[in-house]
Amino acid sequence: MSTTPSATAQRRYDPGRRDRIIDACLDVIARNGVAGTSHRKVAEAADVPLGSMTYHFTGMHELLHEAFSRFARTASEQFEERMATAHDADTAKEAIADAITHNVLSNQRDLVLTHELYTLAAREPAYRDITHAWMARSRRTLEQYFDPTTARILDALVEGLSIHRALDNAPHDQAVVTAAVEMITANPSRAVGKPAV
Amino acid sequence: MSTTPSATAQRRYDPGRRDRIIDACLDVIARNGVAGTSHRKVAEAADVPLGSMTYHFTGMHELLHEAFSRFARTASEQFEERMATAHDADTAKEAIADAITHNVLSNQRDLVLTHELYTLAAREPAYRDITHAWMARSRRTLEQYFDPTTARILDALVEGLSIHRALDNAPHDQAVVTAAVEMITANPSRAVGKPAV
Repeated sequence: MSTTPSATAQRRYDPGRRDRIIDACLDVIARNGVAGTSHRKVAEAADVPLGSMTYHFTGMHELLHEAFSRFARTASEQFEERMATAHDADTAKEAIADAITHNVLSNQRDLVLTHELYTLAAREPAYRDITHAWMARSRRTLEQYFDPTTARILDALVEGLSIHRALDNAPHDQAVVTAAVEMITANPSRAVGKPAV
Repeated sequence: MSTTPSATAQRRYDPGRRDRIIDACLDVIARNGVAGTSHRKVAEAADVPLGSMTYHFTGMHELLHEAFSRFARTASEQFEERMATAHDADTAKEAIADAITHNVLSNQRDLVLTHELYTLAAREPAYRDITHAWMARSRRTLEQYFDPTTARILDALVEGLSIHRALDNAPHDQAVVTAAVEMITANPSRAVGKPAV
Protein backbone atom coordinates (compact mmCIF):
# COMPACT_ATOMS: atom_id res chain seq x y z
CA MET A 1 0.00 0.00 0.00
CA SER A 2 2.79 2.47 0.91
CA THR A 3 4.64 3.71 -2.16
CA THR A 4 6.22 7.05 -1.41
CA PRO A 5 8.09 8.09 0.64
CA SER A 6 10.07 4.96 1.32
CA ALA A 7 8.74 2.60 3.97
CA THR A 8 11.68 3.52 6.24
CA ALA A 9 11.06 7.27 6.04
CA GLN A 10 7.39 6.66 6.63
CA ARG A 11 8.16 4.67 9.73
CA ARG A 12 10.32 7.55 11.04
CA TYR A 13 7.66 10.22 10.75
CA ASP A 14 4.10 9.12 10.26
CA PRO A 15 1.71 11.37 12.16
CA GLY A 16 -1.35 9.78 10.55
CA ARG A 17 -0.43 6.28 11.59
CA ARG A 18 -2.73 5.99 14.61
CA ASP A 19 -5.60 7.25 12.51
CA ARG A 20 -4.82 4.82 9.74
CA ILE A 21 -4.75 1.93 12.19
CA ILE A 22 -8.24 2.85 13.41
CA ASP A 23 -9.60 2.93 9.85
CA ALA A 24 -7.90 -0.37 9.06
CA CYS A 25 -9.40 -1.88 12.20
CA LEU A 26 -12.91 -1.07 10.93
CA ASP A 27 -12.05 -2.71 7.60
CA VAL A 28 -10.85 -5.83 9.38
CA ILE A 29 -13.96 -5.96 11.58
CA ALA A 30 -16.22 -5.55 8.53
CA ARG A 31 -14.39 -8.43 6.85
CA ASN A 32 -13.71 -10.82 9.76
CA GLY A 33 -15.91 -9.72 12.64
CA VAL A 34 -14.73 -8.58 16.06
CA ALA A 35 -13.87 -12.16 16.97
CA GLY A 36 -11.63 -12.47 13.91
CA THR A 37 -9.83 -9.18 14.50
CA SER A 38 -6.26 -9.37 15.80
CA HIS A 39 -3.38 -6.92 16.17
CA ARG A 40 -1.60 -8.79 13.42
CA LYS A 41 -4.43 -8.52 10.91
CA VAL A 42 -5.01 -4.83 11.64
CA ALA A 43 -1.27 -4.06 11.37
CA GLU A 44 -1.19 -5.79 7.99
CA ALA A 45 -4.27 -3.94 6.76
CA ALA A 46 -2.84 -0.60 7.94
CA ASP A 47 0.57 -1.47 6.50
CA VAL A 48 2.36 -0.70 9.76
CA PRO A 49 4.79 -2.81 11.77
CA LEU A 50 3.17 -4.99 14.43
CA GLY A 51 5.03 -3.00 17.13
CA SER A 52 3.00 0.10 16.22
CA MET A 53 -0.09 -1.52 17.61
CA THR A 54 1.16 -1.67 21.19
CA TYR A 55 2.82 1.73 20.80
CA HIS A 56 -0.45 3.43 19.84
CA PHE A 57 -3.00 1.36 21.77
CA THR A 58 -2.93 -0.14 25.25
CA GLY A 59 -4.62 -3.24 23.90
CA MET A 60 -7.44 -4.64 21.80
CA HIS A 61 -10.09 -2.96 23.97
CA GLU A 62 -8.73 0.53 23.27
CA LEU A 63 -8.38 -0.23 19.56
CA LEU A 64 -11.93 -1.61 19.22
CA HIS A 65 -13.28 1.24 21.33
CA GLU A 66 -11.62 3.88 19.15
CA ALA A 67 -12.67 2.14 15.95
CA PHE A 68 -16.33 1.79 16.89
CA SER A 69 -16.40 5.34 18.32
CA ARG A 70 -15.22 6.61 14.95
CA PHE A 71 -17.79 4.46 13.15
CA ALA A 72 -20.64 5.76 15.35
CA ARG A 73 -19.43 9.36 14.95
CA THR A 74 -19.40 9.02 11.17
CA ALA A 75 -22.91 7.53 11.19
CA SER A 76 -24.12 10.38 13.43
CA GLU A 77 -22.61 12.95 11.08
CA GLN A 78 -24.32 11.35 8.10
CA PHE A 79 -27.65 11.44 9.93
CA GLU A 80 -27.07 15.10 10.86
CA GLU A 81 -26.28 15.95 7.25
CA ARG A 82 -29.44 14.20 6.11
CA MET A 83 -31.51 16.04 8.74
CA ALA A 84 -29.86 19.37 7.88
CA THR A 85 -31.82 19.36 4.63
CA ALA A 86 -34.95 19.95 6.74
CA HIS A 87 -36.13 23.41 7.72
CA ASP A 88 -39.30 22.63 9.67
CA ALA A 89 -41.18 19.70 11.22
CA ASP A 90 -42.72 18.63 7.90
CA THR A 91 -39.47 18.51 5.98
CA ALA A 92 -37.86 16.87 9.02
CA LYS A 93 -40.46 14.10 8.81
CA GLU A 94 -39.64 13.62 5.13
CA ALA A 95 -35.94 13.49 5.92
CA ILE A 96 -36.50 10.85 8.62
CA ALA A 97 -38.60 8.65 6.32
CA ASP A 98 -35.97 9.08 3.64
CA ALA A 99 -33.18 8.15 6.05
CA ILE A 100 -34.96 4.94 7.07
CA THR A 101 -35.63 3.91 3.48
CA HIS A 102 -32.40 4.95 1.80
CA ASN A 103 -29.65 5.57 4.32
CA VAL A 104 -29.49 3.92 7.70
CA LEU A 105 -28.00 0.42 7.38
CA SER A 106 -28.48 0.61 3.64
CA ASN A 107 -25.03 -0.61 2.73
CA GLN A 108 -23.54 -3.95 3.66
CA ARG A 109 -20.54 -2.50 5.50
CA ASP A 110 -22.60 -0.23 7.78
CA LEU A 111 -25.11 -2.99 8.42
CA VAL A 112 -22.39 -5.42 9.48
CA LEU A 113 -20.40 -2.90 11.54
CA THR A 114 -23.53 -1.71 13.36
CA HIS A 115 -24.43 -5.25 14.38
CA GLU A 116 -20.85 -6.10 15.29
CA LEU A 117 -20.92 -3.08 17.62
CA TYR A 118 -24.29 -4.03 19.09
CA THR A 119 -23.14 -7.60 19.70
CA LEU A 120 -19.98 -6.35 21.40
CA ALA A 121 -21.96 -3.89 23.55
CA ALA A 122 -24.45 -6.66 24.37
CA ARG A 123 -21.58 -8.81 25.65
CA GLU A 124 -19.51 -6.07 27.29
CA PRO A 125 -21.09 -3.07 28.98
CA ALA A 126 -17.73 -1.26 28.65
CA TYR A 127 -18.71 -0.49 25.05
CA ARG A 128 -22.14 0.92 25.88
CA ASP A 129 -20.76 4.44 26.23
CA ILE A 130 -20.44 4.31 22.43
CA THR A 131 -24.01 3.17 21.78
CA HIS A 132 -25.22 5.63 24.44
CA ALA A 133 -23.38 8.57 22.82
CA TRP A 134 -24.65 7.57 19.38
CA MET A 135 -28.30 7.48 20.52
CA ALA A 136 -27.93 10.71 22.52
CA ARG A 137 -26.53 12.49 19.47
CA SER A 138 -29.31 11.21 17.20
CA ARG A 139 -31.86 12.45 19.69
CA ARG A 140 -30.24 15.89 19.86
CA THR A 141 -30.43 16.05 16.08
CA LEU A 142 -34.13 15.17 16.17
CA GLU A 143 -34.78 17.63 19.02
CA GLN A 144 -34.13 20.46 16.60
CA TYR A 145 -37.60 19.70 15.29
CA PHE A 146 -39.42 17.65 17.93
CA ASP A 147 -39.87 17.54 21.71
CA PRO A 148 -37.50 15.21 23.65
CA THR A 149 -39.98 12.34 24.08
CA THR A 150 -41.01 12.39 20.43
CA ALA A 151 -37.32 12.55 19.45
CA ARG A 152 -36.55 9.53 21.61
CA ILE A 153 -39.42 7.54 20.12
CA LEU A 154 -38.52 8.57 16.56
CA ASP A 155 -34.94 7.46 17.19
CA ALA A 156 -36.14 4.03 18.33
CA LEU A 157 -38.45 3.86 15.31
CA VAL A 158 -35.57 4.64 12.93
CA GLU A 159 -33.61 1.86 14.63
CA GLY A 160 -36.38 -0.72 14.48
CA LEU A 161 -37.60 0.01 10.96
CA SER A 162 -34.04 0.14 9.58
CA ILE A 163 -33.17 -3.22 11.12
CA HIS A 164 -36.43 -4.78 9.95
CA ARG A 165 -35.87 -3.41 6.47
CA ALA A 166 -32.30 -4.74 6.35
CA LEU A 167 -32.91 -8.19 7.82
CA ASP A 168 -36.26 -9.02 6.24
CA ASN A 169 -36.34 -10.70 2.87
CA ALA A 170 -39.67 -8.98 2.13
CA PRO A 171 -39.21 -5.48 3.57
CA HIS A 172 -42.04 -3.09 4.33
CA ASP A 173 -42.72 -0.46 1.72
CA GLN A 174 -42.23 3.27 1.94
CA ALA A 175 -45.89 3.88 2.89
CA VAL A 176 -45.39 2.05 6.20
CA VAL A 177 -42.42 4.27 7.02
CA THR A 178 -44.35 7.43 6.22
CA ALA A 179 -47.34 6.24 8.27
CA ALA A 180 -45.08 5.46 11.23
CA VAL A 181 -43.43 8.86 11.24
CA GLU A 182 -46.83 10.53 10.90
CA MET A 183 -48.30 8.56 13.79
CA ILE A 184 -45.48 9.46 16.14
CA THR A 185 -45.36 13.12 15.22
CA ALA A 186 -49.11 13.66 14.92
CA ASN A 187 -49.74 14.49 18.56
CA PRO A 188 -46.73 16.19 20.11
CA SER A 189 -48.94 17.36 22.98
CA ARG A 190 -49.44 13.72 23.99
CA ALA A 191 -45.76 13.54 24.83
CA VAL A 192 -44.98 12.87 28.46
CA GLY A 193 -42.88 15.22 30.53
CA LYS A 194 -39.13 15.40 30.74
CA PRO A 195 -37.75 11.95 29.94
CA ALA A 196 -34.79 10.43 31.74
CA VAL A 197 -31.52 11.75 30.31
CA MET B 1 -22.98 -35.21 31.92
CA SER B 2 -24.23 -38.67 30.84
CA THR B 3 -24.65 -40.97 33.80
CA THR B 4 -27.26 -43.61 33.05
CA PRO B 5 -27.63 -45.62 30.95
CA SER B 6 -24.00 -46.29 30.16
CA ALA B 7 -22.35 -44.07 27.56
CA THR B 8 -22.24 -47.00 25.16
CA ALA B 9 -25.93 -47.76 25.44
CA GLN B 10 -26.69 -44.09 25.07
CA ARG B 11 -24.64 -43.96 21.91
CA ARG B 12 -26.63 -46.90 20.54
CA TYR B 13 -30.04 -45.37 21.04
CA ASP B 14 -30.25 -41.65 21.69
CA PRO B 15 -33.27 -40.19 19.91
CA GLY B 16 -32.82 -36.79 21.62
CA ARG B 17 -29.28 -36.35 20.46
CA ARG B 18 -29.93 -34.04 17.51
CA ASP B 19 -32.09 -31.87 19.73
CA ARG B 20 -29.46 -31.76 22.43
CA ILE B 21 -26.82 -30.71 19.93
CA ILE B 22 -28.99 -27.79 18.82
CA ASP B 23 -29.45 -26.61 22.41
CA ALA B 24 -25.75 -26.99 23.10
CA CYS B 25 -24.98 -24.99 19.98
CA LEU B 26 -26.97 -22.04 21.37
CA ASP B 27 -25.04 -22.30 24.64
CA VAL B 28 -21.74 -22.24 22.77
CA ILE B 29 -22.83 -19.25 20.65
CA ALA B 30 -23.95 -17.38 23.77
CA ARG B 31 -20.56 -18.04 25.34
CA ASN B 32 -18.17 -17.74 22.39
CA GLY B 33 -20.07 -16.05 19.59
CA VAL B 34 -20.80 -17.50 16.15
CA ALA B 35 -17.17 -16.96 15.16
CA GLY B 36 -15.99 -19.00 18.16
CA THR B 37 -18.41 -21.87 17.56
CA SER B 38 -16.97 -25.10 16.16
CA HIS B 39 -18.19 -28.65 15.74
CA ARG B 40 -15.71 -29.70 18.41
CA LYS B 41 -16.96 -27.20 21.01
CA VAL B 42 -20.61 -28.01 20.36
CA ALA B 43 -19.95 -31.77 20.54
CA GLU B 44 -18.21 -31.26 23.89
CA ALA B 45 -21.03 -29.11 25.24
CA ALA B 46 -23.66 -31.65 24.09
CA ASP B 47 -21.56 -34.54 25.42
CA VAL B 48 -21.71 -36.41 22.11
CA PRO B 49 -18.92 -37.87 19.99
CA LEU B 50 -17.56 -35.51 17.34
CA GLY B 51 -18.79 -37.90 14.63
CA SER B 52 -22.40 -37.17 15.65
CA MET B 53 -22.06 -33.67 14.32
CA THR B 54 -21.55 -34.71 10.72
CA TYR B 55 -24.11 -37.51 11.11
CA HIS B 56 -26.85 -35.12 12.19
CA PHE B 57 -25.90 -31.94 10.29
CA THR B 58 -24.59 -31.39 6.80
CA GLY B 59 -22.29 -28.71 8.14
CA MET B 60 -21.94 -25.62 10.28
CA HIS B 61 -24.53 -23.73 8.22
CA GLU B 62 -27.27 -26.27 8.95
CA LEU B 63 -26.33 -26.39 12.63
CA LEU B 64 -26.34 -22.60 13.05
CA HIS B 65 -29.54 -22.35 11.02
CA GLU B 66 -31.33 -24.90 13.21
CA ALA B 67 -30.01 -23.34 16.41
CA PHE B 68 -31.06 -19.79 15.56
CA SER B 69 -34.41 -21.01 14.20
CA ARG B 70 -35.08 -22.63 17.55
CA PHE B 71 -33.98 -19.50 19.39
CA ALA B 72 -36.29 -17.28 17.29
CA ARG B 73 -39.18 -19.72 17.72
CA THR B 74 -38.75 -19.70 21.49
CA ALA B 75 -38.65 -15.89 21.55
CA SER B 76 -41.80 -15.77 19.40
CA GLU B 77 -43.57 -18.15 21.74
CA GLN B 78 -42.64 -16.03 24.76
CA PHE B 79 -43.98 -12.94 23.01
CA GLU B 80 -47.20 -14.81 22.14
CA GLU B 81 -47.61 -15.92 25.75
CA ARG B 82 -47.12 -12.37 26.94
CA MET B 83 -49.65 -11.06 24.39
CA ALA B 84 -52.12 -13.84 25.28
CA THR B 85 -52.73 -12.07 28.59
CA ALA B 86 -54.50 -9.33 26.59
CA HIS B 87 -58.17 -9.49 25.72
CA ASP B 88 -58.67 -6.21 23.84
CA ALA B 89 -56.67 -3.36 22.28
CA ASP B 90 -56.14 -1.60 25.62
CA THR B 91 -54.79 -4.62 27.45
CA ALA B 92 -52.76 -5.44 24.33
CA LYS B 93 -51.12 -2.02 24.55
CA GLU B 94 -50.27 -2.67 28.19
CA ALA B 95 -48.83 -6.05 27.30
CA ILE B 96 -46.65 -4.52 24.56
CA ALA B 97 -45.30 -1.81 26.87
CA ASP B 98 -44.66 -4.45 29.48
CA ALA B 99 -42.85 -6.67 26.98
CA ILE B 100 -40.53 -3.81 25.95
CA THR B 101 -39.73 -2.88 29.54
CA HIS B 102 -39.48 -6.30 31.14
CA ASN B 103 -39.12 -9.04 28.56
CA VAL B 104 -37.60 -8.51 25.16
CA LEU B 105 -33.79 -8.62 25.36
CA SER B 106 -34.04 -8.32 29.12
CA ASN B 107 -31.61 -11.11 29.90
CA GLN B 108 -27.99 -11.25 28.87
CA ARG B 109 -28.30 -14.53 26.98
CA ASP B 110 -31.22 -13.40 24.80
CA LEU B 111 -29.58 -10.04 24.17
CA VAL B 112 -26.35 -11.66 23.00
CA LEU B 113 -28.04 -14.39 20.93
CA THR B 114 -30.33 -11.89 19.21
CA HIS B 115 -27.40 -9.73 18.16
CA GLU B 116 -25.33 -12.73 17.13
CA LEU B 117 -28.22 -13.74 14.86
CA TYR B 118 -28.62 -10.21 13.47
CA THR B 119 -24.89 -9.96 12.76
CA LEU B 120 -24.94 -13.33 11.00
CA ALA B 121 -28.01 -12.35 8.95
CA ALA B 122 -26.38 -9.01 8.15
CA ARG B 123 -23.36 -10.85 6.75
CA GLU B 124 -25.18 -13.75 5.11
CA PRO B 125 -28.62 -13.35 3.52
CA ALA B 126 -29.04 -17.15 3.79
CA TYR B 127 -30.02 -16.58 7.43
CA ARG B 128 -32.62 -13.90 6.72
CA ASP B 129 -35.39 -16.47 6.40
CA ILE B 130 -35.04 -16.80 10.19
CA THR B 131 -35.29 -13.07 10.91
CA HIS B 132 -38.09 -12.80 8.33
CA ALA B 133 -40.10 -15.61 9.95
CA TRP B 134 -39.56 -14.12 13.41
CA MET B 135 -40.84 -10.70 12.36
CA ALA B 136 -43.76 -12.18 10.42
CA ARG B 137 -44.83 -14.20 13.46
CA SER B 138 -44.58 -11.18 15.79
CA ARG B 139 -46.74 -9.21 13.40
CA ARG B 140 -49.34 -11.97 13.23
CA THR B 141 -49.47 -11.93 17.03
CA LEU B 142 -50.00 -8.17 17.03
CA GLU B 143 -52.60 -8.41 14.27
CA GLN B 144 -54.94 -10.10 16.70
CA TYR B 145 -55.47 -6.60 18.10
CA PHE B 146 -54.31 -4.11 15.47
CA ASP B 147 -54.48 -3.58 11.70
CA PRO B 148 -51.50 -4.90 9.67
CA THR B 149 -49.74 -1.55 9.25
CA THR B 150 -50.06 -0.67 12.92
CA ALA B 151 -48.83 -4.16 13.80
CA ARG B 152 -45.80 -3.73 11.56
CA ILE B 153 -44.94 -0.37 13.08
CA LEU B 154 -45.47 -1.65 16.63
CA ASP B 155 -43.15 -4.57 15.89
CA ALA B 156 -40.43 -2.15 14.71
CA LEU B 157 -41.03 -0.02 17.78
CA VAL B 158 -40.64 -3.03 20.10
CA GLU B 159 -37.38 -3.79 18.30
CA GLY B 160 -36.00 -0.26 18.46
CA LEU B 161 -37.02 0.51 22.04
CA SER B 162 -35.80 -2.86 23.32
CA ILE B 163 -32.41 -2.40 21.70
CA HIS B 164 -32.12 1.17 22.93
CA ARG B 165 -33.08 0.09 26.41
CA ALA B 166 -30.54 -2.75 26.42
CA LEU B 167 -27.59 -0.89 24.90
CA ASP B 168 -28.00 2.49 26.57
CA ASN B 169 -26.37 3.13 29.90
CA ALA B 170 -29.18 5.59 30.76
CA PRO B 171 -32.31 3.89 29.40
CA HIS B 172 -35.58 5.67 28.75
CA ASP B 173 -38.20 5.26 31.41
CA GLN B 174 -41.52 3.46 31.24
CA ALA B 175 -43.45 6.66 30.42
CA VAL B 176 -41.64 6.94 27.08
CA VAL B 177 -42.64 3.38 26.20
CA THR B 178 -46.28 3.99 27.11
CA ALA B 179 -46.31 7.25 25.13
CA ALA B 180 -44.83 5.50 22.09
CA VAL B 181 -47.40 2.71 22.10
CA GLU B 182 -50.20 5.26 22.58
CA MET B 183 -48.98 7.41 19.68
CA ILE B 184 -48.86 4.50 17.28
CA THR B 185 -52.18 3.01 18.26
CA ALA B 186 -54.07 6.29 18.68
CA ASN B 187 -55.16 6.65 15.07
CA PRO B 188 -55.67 3.26 13.49
CA SER B 189 -57.64 4.92 10.69
CA ARG B 190 -54.48 6.74 9.63
CA ALA B 191 -52.96 3.42 8.71
CA VAL B 192 -52.16 2.98 5.04
CA GLY B 193 -53.60 0.18 2.95
CA LYS B 194 -52.42 -3.34 2.70
CA PRO B 195 -48.68 -3.43 3.42
CA ALA B 196 -46.24 -5.66 1.58
CA VAL B 197 -46.24 -9.17 3.03
